[in-house]
Amino acid sequence: MTNPFELTATDAIRLIGNNTLSRYEWVQSCFERIREKEDLVKAWIYLDEDRALEKAKQLDNENNESQLGIPFGIKDIIDASNTPTGFGTNFYQNNVPMRDAASVSVAKQSGCIFIGKTVSTELGHRAPGLTTNPHNKDFTPGGSSSGSAAAVASMMAPVCFGTQTTGSVIRPAAYCGVIGYKPSYGDFDKSGILPNSPSIDTLGLMSRSVEDIALFRSILLEEDLVSIKKVDLSKIKIGFVRTPHWDKTDDSTKEAFEHFLNLLRSDKLNVVDLEIDNLISKSDALHLDISGYEFKRSISHERFNYYDQLSDQLRNGRLNDGYQVSNKNYQLALKDLSILKNQIDAVFDKTDLIITPSAPGEALKGLEYTGSPIFNTTWSLNGNPCITLPLFKGKQELPIGCQFVARFGEDDQLLNYAKAFLEL
Amino acid sequence: MTNPFELTATDAIRLIGNNTLSRYEWVQSCFERIREKEDLVKAWIYLDEDRALEKAKQLDNENNESQLGIPFGIKDIIDASNTPTGFGTNFYQNNVPMRDAASVSVAKQSGCIFIGKTVSTELGHRAPGLTTNPHNKDFTPGGSSSGSAAAVASMMAPVCFGTQTTGSVIRPAAYCGVIGYKPSYGDFDKSGILPNSPSIDTLGLMSRSVEDIALFRSILLEEDLVSIKKVDLSKIKIGFVRTPHWDKTDDSTKEAFEHFLNLLRSDKLNVVDLEIDNLISKSDALHLDISGYEFKRSISHERFNYYDQLSDQLRNGRLNDGYQVSNKNYQLALKDLSILKNQIDAVFDKTDLIITPSAPGEALKGLEYTGSPIFNTTWSLNGNPCITLPLFKGKQELPIGCQFVARFGEDDQLLNYAKAFLEL
Repeated sequence: MTNPFELTATDAIRLIGNNTLSRYEWVQSCFERIREKEDLVKAWIYLDEDRALEKAKQLDNENNESQLGIPFGIKDIIDASNTPTGFGTNFYQNNVPMRDAASVSVAKQSGCIFIGKTVSTELGHRAPGLTTNPHNKDFTPGGSSSGSAAAVASMMAPVCFGTQTTGSVIRPAAYCGVIGYKPSYGDFDKSGILPNSPSIDTLGLMSRSVEDIALFRSILLEEDLVSIKKVDLSKIKIGFVRTPHWDKTDDSTKEAFEHFLNLLRSDKLNVVDLEIDNLISKSDALHLDISGYEFKRSISHERFNYYDQLSDQLRNGRLNDGYQVSNKNYQLALKDLSILKNQIDAVFDKTDLIITPSAPGEALKGLEYTGSPIFNTTWSLNGNPCITLPLFKGKQELPIGCQFVARFGEDDQLLNYAKAFLEL
Repeated sequence: MTNPFELTATDAIRLIGNNTLSRYEWVQSCFERIREKEDLVKAWIYLDEDRALEKAKQLDNENNESQLGIPFGIKDIIDASNTPTGFGTNFYQNNVPMRDAASVSVAKQSGCIFIGKTVSTELGHRAPGLTTNPHNKDFTPGGSSSGSAAAVASMMAPVCFGTQTTGSVIRPAAYCGVIGYKPSYGDFDKSGILPNSPSIDTLGLMSRSVEDIALFRSILLEEDLVSIKKVDLSKIKIGFVRTPHWDKTDDSTKEAFEHFLNLLRSDKLNVVDLEIDNLISKSDALHLDISGYEFKRSISHERFNYYDQLSDQLRNGRLNDGYQVSNKNYQLALKDLSILKNQIDAVFDKTDLIITPSAPGEALKGLEYTGSPIFNTTWSLNGNPCITLPLFKGKQELPIGCQFVARFGEDDQLLNYAKAFLEL
């Protein structure tokens, strides 16, 4: 039999329904897996084993099918009640919030079992934690949701929560070879999550199946599960977006995508090269101003009280960017953004789905740099739903993700497309 | 000599600059005033006298003019580090956040002196605290920023922070006879403030002078003070907006406004009746869906863990509203809102300034109901800057506010207009 830790949430729930798996066995198996892999992967900053096992036992005893029992981890910038929340820093070790983040509370209410906090970069920005890439410990797992991606990739948990302001869900998911999903902006609540750039910040999910994404989407929305529907990919219009950053992709990525496009075309899929470089360059510029301005404001307590303990990357990076933007220019950027969002929306009048890289290539060697988010900025800023699938492998035998982007609000359809591409 | 507690912040800072007042004397005088009035007004849920006086002494000793020394209070849904933050409930009495809200941190950095937390309604919603109206203890101070309005009105502090999702700054300020200001949406950071409806929530200010609003605006934006400029009101186009709710105003309000309009017209001001009932009704409907949906999500931890301790007003009111809205309808409402915002913006192509009531009338008798926000919903939802000035008095000898609304982003100009109206 498969080890329980290997199961997707959707599969495990079926087994629980059949009485061939208990929630306790499932959670216990995840913690065994964590014990086996954590020394190398370093995905967790805090583990909640005793309370998690106790909860699993309690739910087994209650035997209420609607109480799902899914073990899940959350990025360390997301609050869990009575649990240390360090925000990826050393100076918040004594921070123990009383409230669950709304998303965590809703998940617990469905019987999902909180198992721990995953490593975040510093304040959800760039300076990395200790997490390594589960495929090769000498390579970055990506960030800022480093631990969540690594935990799901190494099968320590079926699902983890991350957050994305630029590329913080899609990139680490791609580097670690899992599915990463960022919903339409605003779909998942952010109460109890450290704000980074509130106009852009989005809670996202890491998993090993599209069905699990759909399942957690229904949990977080408190709505019925929208099951994945079969779609005929030959009936949709697909736009491949190289972006102005195509020359920054590595050779593996270029080859993988060219090969993939040829395959799609030979399968009679309707794929065109979609040139929207002007919209992407505009997004890059606006994202810089808006995220810089908002990030500088959001972390006011930290810059005034812990400045010496902040990383150079943060001080000289987005924080410095923020100091360059006046309130007037910020307001103008927001106005420009509302126009840009309409222009991006209009792109989807002629295209059902965009395909574009998830990252410039395989994960980079070394743990210092979590990689570039240039292929994610546009979709984060404009609030489009996106998902990365681990479709390719690079020269270094590391995963390469393929990013799919849909029109704002078309999350269910995006998941249908993603499932169809996985089954191609 | 005037008691220091009576001074506006702007005046007190001038005296500190002249060495005719120390920060210590100022803060001490505010606490003396609090001791005198608090038994009746009940504006505070927590006072921080020892730390405030110590800070004032320290700043006096440093004698750095840029360290302003302004005593300020904050609504109890706003975090202050190492200070109890109860969110207007009984079940968060042990909640002591480690971080200052960004706005509080920025104010402290300018040398403003935190003196305490003011009474909020339950979770920033409707169920009232114990605060009374400083003009008559049998009347509501309004809400949800009840304590902040009452504290400023009774001269316990020159400035307090409030928040507004519907009418939670403008209405209590009007009922208590102080100036209340809600900036353009997004201008003041909200990190560390309990989210209510994040697409609408706005930090706002209560004060006793327009100059103090301008001063705190510059502090919170970390930008140079934009001094109030003289404007010639006869050169601007003013729209008086009765709204579809005019028949719900009390007689005092109707009379006060009719008299005021006649006065303005006799002064040769260009005031027209501006009929935008369709936009206001549309705003009312969208606000109901968006704020309900978001509020229900934001307080997930509370509805799942403290449901029995929540008020009926909350459970049967906005929480119930939220349960009626699906994610799909929420997304549609957000789309409608982006169109509506453009329509509201277009209103200001033909109008420089809107005048409209701040509330349906004087404060209501009894402390159970904090009053109706029907005259505030549109401007909260659409993010316009607004200010209420205590221009009139009603039949019960209670203040009646006049609300001024400007185009999104024209906050500085709005303050100029407000000053000119005060000097009419």
